[in-house]
Amino acid sequence: MKFLSYSYQNQASWGLATDTGVVSLGTPSCPTLRSALLAGVLEKMGSAAQGQADTCSWAQITFLPVITDPGKIICIGHNYEEHRIETERDKTDNPTVFLRVADSQTGHLQPLLMPAESDHFDYEGEIAVVIGQGGRRISQARAWDHVAGYSAYNDGSVRDWQRHTTQFTPGKNFVGTGAFGPFLVTRGEIADGEELTLTTRLNGQVMQQATTAMMIFTIPRLIEYVSTFTTLAPGDVIVSGTPGGVGARRQPPVWMKEGDLVEIEVSKIGVLRNRVEKEKL
Amino acid sequence: MKFLSYSYQNQASWGLATDTGVVSLGTPSCPTLRSALLAGVLEKMGSAAQGQADTCSWAQITFLPVITDPGKIICIGHNYEEHRIETERDKTDNPTVFLRVADSQTGHLQPLLMPAESDHFDYEGEIAVVIGQGGRRISQARAWDHVAGYSAYNDGSVRDWQRHTTQFTPGKNFVGTGAFGPFLVTRGEIADGEELTLTTRLNGQVMQQATTAMMIFTIPRLIEYVSTFTTLAPGDVIVSGTPGGVGARRQPPVWMKEGDLVEIEVSKIGVLRNRVEKEKL
Repeated sequence: MKFLSYSYQNQASWGLATDTGVVSLGTPSCPTLRSALLAGVLEKMGSAAQGQADTCSWAQITFLPVITDPGKIICIGHNYEEHRIETERDKTDNPTVFLRVADSQTGHLQPLLMPAESDHFDYEGEIAVVIGQGGRRISQARAWDHVAGYSAYNDGSVRDWQRHTTQFTPGKNFVGTGAFGPFLVTRGEIADGEELTLTTRLNGQVMQQATTAMMIFTIPRLIEYVSTFTTLAPGDVIVSGTPGGVGARRQPPVWMKEGDLVEIEVSKIGVLRNRVEKEKL
Repeated sequence: MKFLSYSYQNQASWGLATDTGVVSLGTPSCPTLRSALLAGVLEKMGSAAQGQADTCSWAQITFLPVITDPGKIICIGHNYEEHRIETERDKTDNPTVFLRVADSQTGHLQPLLMPAESDHFDYEGEIAVVIGQGGRRISQARAWDHVAGYSAYNDGSVRDWQRHTTQFTPGKNFVGTGAFGPFLVTRGEIADGEELTLTTRLNGQVMQQATTAMMIFTIPRLIEYVSTFTTLAPGDVIVSGTPGGVGARRQPPVWMKEGDLVEIEVSKIGVLRNRVEKEKL
């Protein structure tokens, strides 16, 4: 099943994606996709909605980030060998982890915001793993059972701000830079460990391409590592790292500019599409 | 005024601190200190509660982190020259920023949890700045107007996990390692820019001591910088950095151990006191 978060007539909701639109599932007791995960009712609500008529067509809605209000957005750095080498990072025994705040996110087809303070705005295509069942110290063997599903993520990065100090936080947390969508594709649609292809296109040109088989740290290993220090909760998001080919490491560097179209495609999940908009003060 | 978050008979609440206990201010529409900040009613509710009889004595309550559910906990690294030098960090034009998640926090007099995975558990005494009025791109000139008040923070750090990679996140986010309290002391009690003294004691011995005049980046500068990339909201917390004297940089290193008493004292705010407990699996 495919789920999404959206707004319609300025009212935020979420629902089941059909071929033509969305069957609304937002209720007062379950107003967000995250709340359905927390209540453990996502699959049940989705099943009940199947075959029902669309509440809205695609043209009527505004996409929101798949999870609008994650408790944690855990981002992984340097998780593909080609990207580790291009960024001149040492090999490590453990994943590189940084955090995003929820309000740095944006939805499918919404503007990806290049801040007024920088022109060094870069794409990072990634696969997002959404947690369905929480837990602490989750073993790799049980990790898949904690996955609700997957989506695409563009971890839009303001490179000069990312490099102000050793810590990436500022460059990874500008408002409207983290695109997340279009859908949550549930675990039932993709076999555990099935190889997924990740492609980033900038104005139609392929800039990044890799498969999950090329990850340095697998999804179960990421869940194991992260849940060692923090308690994962339903709706938490692990953004699993970007492959080689980022703009900053090209010669000459490629920076996104106003009007650029950036697409993150993940096989079996779909295409996350955003146009770059330069923020005006 | 002084406010706190606490639980009584397993019910979380918050209230005004008196000399002997707390006047409860938790209501269904304003269940947390953060919600009172969001509604802009903290000072008004506090004033109305002054002179009222205690709802609970100190002995009856369990302290919770001052803000139990901050939208963002923004931690500053290397903000005192002595600590910058001991950690061998380069001078930078901008603050070092990393994030904590809300459930890494613990309250005054609650155990500071040394995780089962490490014996390299270190204290970091800090001053916490709680945001009262939100905003983006807040100028230094207007920064104080956005402060609700101050508290003490122990940014408990699992040093080996902090050093797994370049990014500090794992070592700064173990469950129960970030102590925050005892009180929110409102801006009205402390003149803007007034010099505050910060002292960390381990089993009674002074390990860190500094004043806010020694900060590399002042509180207004921190608010200005952070609010450039993210929208600050009421209840957000800026943990403003630790002075020299951390355990990891002593010769030989000093690691906290089971039963240790660690105290963070900030003048005009109070003493945050926690005992170290080794987590059992």
